[in-house]
Amino acid sequence: MRPPVADIADVVSFNADGLVAAIAQQHDTGEVLMMAWMNAEALAETLSTGRVCYYSRSRGKLWRKGESSGQTQALIDLRIDCDGDALLLLVDQSGVACHTGRRSCFYRAARPEGLVEIAAPEISPDALYGHTHNH
Amino acid sequence: MRPPVADIADVVSFNADGLVAAIAQQHDTGEVLMMAWMNAEALAETLSTGRVCYYSRSRGKLWRKGESSGQTQALIDLRIDCDGDALLLLVDQSGVACHTGRRSCFYRAARPEGLVEIAAPEISPDALYGHTHNH
Repeated sequence: MRPPVADIADVVSFNADGLVAAIAQQHDTGEVLMMAWMNAEALAETLSTGRVCYYSRSRGKLWRKGESSGQTQALIDLRIDCDGDALLLLVDQSGVACHTGRRSCFYRAARPEGLVEIAAPEISPDALYGHTHNH
Repeated sequence: MRPPVADIADVVSFNADGLVAAIAQQHDTGEVLMMAWMNAEALAETLSTGRVCYYSRSRGKLWRKGESSGQTQALIDLRIDCDGDALLLLVDQSGVACHTGRRSCFYRAARPEGLVEIAAPEISPDALYGHTHNH
């Protein structure tokens, strides 16, 4: 996918920090995997490469999803909401999206008995981040 | 669903404005409908009533989804992400989520030829907001 980047960025309302919220959804199962942020540069890179790149607020720099974990997100489609302040990324997630080793970051549910973990790690964080790998 | 509100709010990381991002997803189809914001009061009301209430940043007050349009969201489940700064609301959307009359706010897609509208309004905004109704 190589849409005209300028065309897209024109309708995005970046916030005071220059960021827009980006929701990643597995394109075929509909599972919501995570929410993160993009600046204009991350959005442009994502659109031009077809590989999802966020902006890490904690590290203050581009966050090429999977660059340390190998768990990349291939962009299938990118949607923009009515007021332009949220993006929905339809992706093909390689492995797991969450740094805890779970498929989705939304693994805790508010249930009558309190917070419940509804998914277990599929990979240990050590395996994700502790070793050199070639992904 | 009546989970202990304090238990949930304790793990939510509200931002500097006292808000947390909330993604609404239709519980059975997986369609992502919208993204909005909640403050602690909106979250507590949503959990205690089972009807989704956001916080409107533009109006600076609670936004009981559907209070003017009739297009309410019944809460089916509420998920919290790994770092607590995003919520995923599994909802049963009555009618349409978007103020444009479309089912989802994410009705524009970035395609090679530019931005494309991938969904048409199901209800006219006039019908949603222009008349008194009893929903």
